[in-house]
Formats: sequence, structure tokens, C-alpha cells
Amino acid sequence: MPTVTMIGGGQLARMTHQAAIALGQCLRVLAVSSSDPAAQVSADVVVGSHDDLSALRSAARGATALTFDHEGVPLAHLQALEADGVTVRPPSAALHYAQDKLAMRSRLAELGLPVPDFVDLAGDHDDARTRLIDFGERHGWQIVVKAVRGGYDGRGVWLLDDRDEALAVFDDQANGSVGLIAEQKVPMRRELSAMIARSPFGQGAAWPVVETIQRKGQCAVVIAPATGLPDDVAEQAQQMALRLANELGVVGVMAMELFETDRGEIVVNELAMRPHNSGHWTMDGAVTSQFEQHIRAVLDYPLGGTASRAPVTVMANILGADDAPTMSMDERLHHLMARMPDAKVHLYGKGERPDRKIGHVNIVGTEADSVDDVRERAERAASWMSRAEWTDGWDPHS
Amino acid sequence: MPTVTMIGGGQLARMTHQAAIALGQCLRVLAVSSSDPAAQVSADVVVGSHDDLSALRSAARGATALTFDHEGVPLAHLQALEADGVTVRPPSAALHYAQDKLAMRSRLAELGLPVPDFVDLAGDHDDARTRLIDFGERHGWQIVVKAVRGGYDGRGVWLLDDRDEALAVFDDQANGSVGLIAEQKVPMRRELSAMIARSPFGQGAAWPVVETIQRKGQCAVVIAPATGLPDDVAEQAQQMALRLANELGVVGVMAMELFETDRGEIVVNELAMRPHNSGHWTMDGAVTSQFEQHIRAVLDYPLGGTASRAPVTVMANILGADDAPTMSMDERLHHLMARMPDAKVHLYGKGERPDRKIGHVNIVGTEADSVDDVRERAERAASWMSRAEWTDGWDPHS
Repeated sequence: MPTVTMIGGGQLARMTHQAAIALGQCLRVLAVSSSDPAAQVSADVVVGSHDDLSALRSAARGATALTFDHEGVPLAHLQALEADGVTVRPPSAALHYAQDKLAMRSRLAELGLPVPDFVDLAGDHDDARTRLIDFGERHGWQIVVKAVRGGYDGRGVWLLDDRDEALAVFDDQANGSVGLIAEQKVPMRRELSAMIARSPFGQGAAWPVVETIQRKGQCAVVIAPATGLPDDVAEQAQQMALRLANELGVVGVMAMELFETDRGEIVVNELAMRPHNSGHWTMDGAVTSQFEQHIRAVLDYPLGGTASRAPVTVMANILGADDAPTMSMDERLHHLMARMPDAKVHLYGKGERPDRKIGHVNIVGTEADSVDDVRERAERAASWMSRAEWTDGWDPHS
Repeated sequence: MPTVTMIGGGQLARMTHQAAIALGQCLRVLAVSSSDPAAQVSADVVVGSHDDLSALRSAARGATALTFDHEGVPLAHLQALEADGVTVRPPSAALHYAQDKLAMRSRLAELGLPVPDFVDLAGDHDDARTRLIDFGERHGWQIVVKAVRGGYDGRGVWLLDDRDEALAVFDDQANGSVGLIAEQKVPMRRELSAMIARSPFGQGAAWPVVETIQRKGQCAVVIAPATGLPDDVAEQAQQMALRLANELGVVGVMAMELFETDRGEIVVNELAMRPHNSGHWTMDGAVTSQFEQHIRAVLDYPLGGTASRAPVTVMANILGADDAPTMSMDERLHHLMARMPDAKVHLYGKGERPDRKIGHVNIVGTEADSVDDVRERAERAASWMSRAEWTDGWDPHS
């Protein structure tokens, strides 16, 4: 059987290893430490950094394909691996767009896909400042400044609503080595995610479009499928993601994060070319999980079915609490299992730090459940696991 | 988080490791070789034999609980571990009944559970031969001779239907170190399995009763739930299994294999106190898989929901073929995925030998599917994976 190497030993690699086991494989992981979430559970771990080309080469040796649990590998290293003959999936030419928000925005605009208005803030400081002021005035200072590279889970993203604040962020950040862009803040109803997979053969597969609920700049809850989304809009989102994956030569799974605007249109926000938080619901709620699908795609296997296995599945992230609960994770798990025998808990083996993603809960609804009920249960379960308090669940009547 | 050690590195341990990952754990495995199915995929492997007390002690060190993927650990070793203070689950006092068919039969009879008529063939050869002849005559020589210990997948079991054959088996086998019993061959419609779990706290949980189809003395296909089984009979089977687990102090999952007689009654055949082939369907077809449930039970967590997630799920074993196919397992998997995007394949990382269990396929049906269709697809998928021939699927019209 083939061997897939995944660069990065986080929870995405951990869950990909679970899926690899069923396919007769063991995921090889390049992890920074042997205590990383995936390194704790895989029999095939190379310890080293994704910044270190020799570590990347060690991890790639003898592997059928090389893939990623994050976007952090320097592009030059990916190109060097490709020159070595390593099967890098997604290839550097595609991954580039997931690493560089400016390149991504420009390419999307070029392809005629709906994107928020944006402006590049690279180059001469004063010129860029002038462009920012023009852009800000045009959008009533309802803008977002973003680092072109390296942002995730709210880092490298500044949501702004006035001129002084925006210029302060710009002046503060523009001296760093990372480029910046500014984007229009799109007036929106909600955020969506269209998750798809594409194989080198060119096969595509799309899961139902989901709603994602963000808190503190990171994904907190996913409702699958997105409730009340018109079929034509859902299909448009899926088609956009499949088309883009094809245009960019993406291999593996890809999440296209979207805004549903106040007018019911969809606009592309971000891209991730790897398993993604908005796809965790598929582990229990879809015929094929995003993790199995990613392996299938990078190995050029035919893709698995993407149908939902239930009318609704809600995923809620378990986040580290501000004040670590005195009750251990193990005890919390006992209590959760006692209260909700059907909660599907996925823990990542990570230490608890405020707002850190340390696990998630999926609740798979039945025909008898309302979406609100399923969501309330998922949020209550995740909140309990985070804080050891039952009272902080989401209130559908709030 | 706690650590569970499983003795034995086969496919049951491999799939238990998958389930452990979701619970924030890594399964520690005592495997005979680092190439054993579970040792290929777990980060925590002790290489050694289940016959070797010092290896057992190494594997138990620091573990929260010790459990098993087979019945092969000598009872004296289990008792020694218990004397060391190791939490052995199921405890030796219960596991004894899964290791010794005579003790099991006697205890079941004592508890008033329905068992086939049986006779102990231990002791003086001539006396035992006389008892066998009496027993055979009484049952028209429709009998089964079984080794008291160590049999599995048809080994150590002789299905007989005439006197000369029976006596030949007896004379041949009775000289070995393993005791024998003879049992009445029960005139039956089909075989069933009642899979349950029990925690030390005393909580019990039962999955729907399934039908098992045996070929060459080993499980080939499982239909979940068993079709057309009257509710009261299904409930009786579940209650029997739960009661027995309670009486014996079983901890973990337990399979009670049953005969449904020609008259629609149920009779206990065998017991297994571990994840069991008749429970593989739960990985894709039930709220909680038998593997997660086993971990929950041995750690005294509250048990997970056991409801079916679909109207029917069929499991078919992938067996090594008599003539190894020229097409590799990997190529066969490609073709299967292309034909059946919703087939759930589970491969064990084992070499192919005739009739060896090397994987299984679950097909999860929808309301639109007939049981026959789902079974036909599962058998076709498994047959393809075994032999690289599409033509050998089960024919519902045969």
C-alpha cells in the first residue's frame, strides 16, 4: 500500500492518520515535536521543522505523495522538493494561492469570481498609505486589513471601522516583512464554506455547503448543511469551488470560505487547500470524511461519496478556556458522555490554552430534531468540554 | 488522559487504536511483531508475546487498564497481573469463560440460559469414548466436537454427521493436551449475534441483534439488524447477553453468538469478550462503534449510544484468496472506489493468505435500498477485494 507524508503534526494530521488506518496505511508525519497531536498517535513520525528542507526531504523519502496540514512550508522548499521528483499535493503552483492572500485575490478577480474589493498595500510606505486612505474613504472605513501570509484563526487579520484605527494598524504593521492588503468589509448575513475535493485525474466532489459561525476571528460552530440556503446558491458555491480547484490545479480537499451578502449573493473570502475546520462535521455526518477524501485525492484514488448521512450535523469546537477548569479533561469527558451518549467527541491531545482549538464535538441530528436543538446540544457539549460549565450553551432564543 | 493497553496486535487492536485517537488517547499495543496490524499504526508498541509474563508486565506498566484483542493470554498470567495491581478488563474471573468452552457451557446451563446439549470428553479415554457414543446415538450423530480452548474461525471445531467420523476425530484429537467437548448440532434457521457492552459501574448497552452468515466455519457476512427477527426474540437475546455479562462480571464489549432454531427459539453458541467480527458494522452503521465502546467500558466511561444510523448495514469480510490475485490490493482498492463511492473499506495491513481475514467492507443502506441489494453490494465489494473478480458477488436470487 502507498505511504502519504503529511507536513505538520497538528490535529488535521492526527485525524488524517485515523482515516489512513482504514485504507490499510499509516500516515507519515513531519512534526515539530514528538508530542504534537499526530505524532502522539502515528507509528511513522519524522521530527523536524517544515522550514528545514533537509527535514522535508527526510519525510518525503519513499513516500508516494507529500501533503500538508498547514500552509507554512516555504514555497521555495516545495519547489525544491518537486525538482527532487517528490509528488507534492497540492503542487506548489496551486498552494501558492493558499499561502498568499494577494495572489489569491488577484487570481480570483482575474477568473471573474466574486471577491470583496481589495487593495495591495505593498511597496513605498507613503504611496501605500495614500492607497489605503482612498480605499478607506471609498468604503466608509468599513475595511479589513490582512497580512498577505501566515495569518490563521484571526491572527494577521484586523477588522476595522474607522480611519485612525486603520492607519494605526497600517503604520504599525507595514514595517514588518509581511505584506498587507486591505479589503472591503462585506455587509453580510452569514459566512458559508464550500468544501470540495479534486484528484490529479481531475475528478471533483463537493460536500453540501455549510454555515460557519466565527467567534474571536476563528471558526466556532459549523451547521451542515447551511439552513435555508437556496439550492441555486449552494450549487453556485460548489461550482465556483470546483472550477477554481480545476483552474489552479488543486489536489486534495479545498475549503472555499464565503460570505453570503445582505443581498443573498456570495463572495469568496478565503481558501484553504487542506482539511479544514469547516469540514470536521464530515467525520460523523457524511458518507466520506474530509480526511479520507484528502488521502484519496492525493493518491489519485477515485473520490468517495459526499452525501450527508443525516438531515443536519452540527460541529462545535472545544476551545481552551481563559481560566483552565479545575476538573480534568478526562473528568469532563466522563460527564459529557453521561449526559449525551450520542455526542461524537474528537480530542486532539493538545494542552489547554485560551481559545486554542483542542477538540470538537459533532452532533448528528435525526428527522425528529430541529436544527436549533442540534446546535444547542453541540454548543452545550463543546462549552462544557471547554469550561466545565453546563450553563454556557448557545441559546436558540437569544 | 488515560492509557489503555491492548494485548494482541491484530486488526481488533488496530481498529481500537483508531477509536482511541478520537478520545484523545493512543492505544498501547503488545504485539508479537512490529509488522502486526496494530503495531503498524500505533505510536505506542511493546513487542513481545502474550505468553510471556514479563512482556505483559512491560505492556501494563503505567496503563490505566489492560484489555485484549484475543483470548490467548494464559489465565495464570492474568491472575499474576491482577495480583500486581493491574486493572485487567475483562477480569480473569470473567475471561476464563471466554477461554474455556466447557466452563462457559456449564455456567450458562447453571444460569438457565438456553444452550445446546453437550458432554464433557475429558478424563479417561475409554470412558470419554463411551460418553461420546451415548451422546452421539442420542443426537443421531448430528454433533459438533470442539476443543475446549484455543479454537477460532473454524479451527478446533469439527462438524460431524456420522459415528465413524466422530470417533476418528475423537481418537485423533483426544490425545492432545486440549480437552474436548461434544455438542448437539442444533437444527437452525440462521445464526445471530447479540453484541453488548458492560462497564465496571454496571452500565449495560446493547446494539441491535444481527444475523451472521458463516462460510468455512468463519464469519463472512453480517446483516444489521437481523431481518425479520421478532422484537421479543431480539429483546430476549439482548437481555440474555446483558444478564450474562452481569453475572460473569464482564467488562468491555461482549458478543453472544446465537442459533435461531427451526422453531424460532434462540440458543447460545459462543461468547467473545472483546470487539468481534459481528460488530464491525457498528463502525459505519451505529452511533457508537464497538471499538470506541470497548474503550469506554474498560475505562469505566459512560457508554455511547448503540442505535443504528441506517435502516440496514451489511458487513462483508475481505478474505485472502486461494490464488493470490495478480492485481495488487492497491489497484483493487482503486477499482472498488470507482465502482462504489459509498463503500466503507477497512483494511488491516495483513498479508494475503487463503481465507485469512484481511479487511472488511461496510455498506450502509438508505430507506430506498432493499436488504438484498445492500447485501449484494457488500458481498460483491468484498469478493472483488479478495479475488479481483466482479462476478462472484452473492446472488439474492440464487
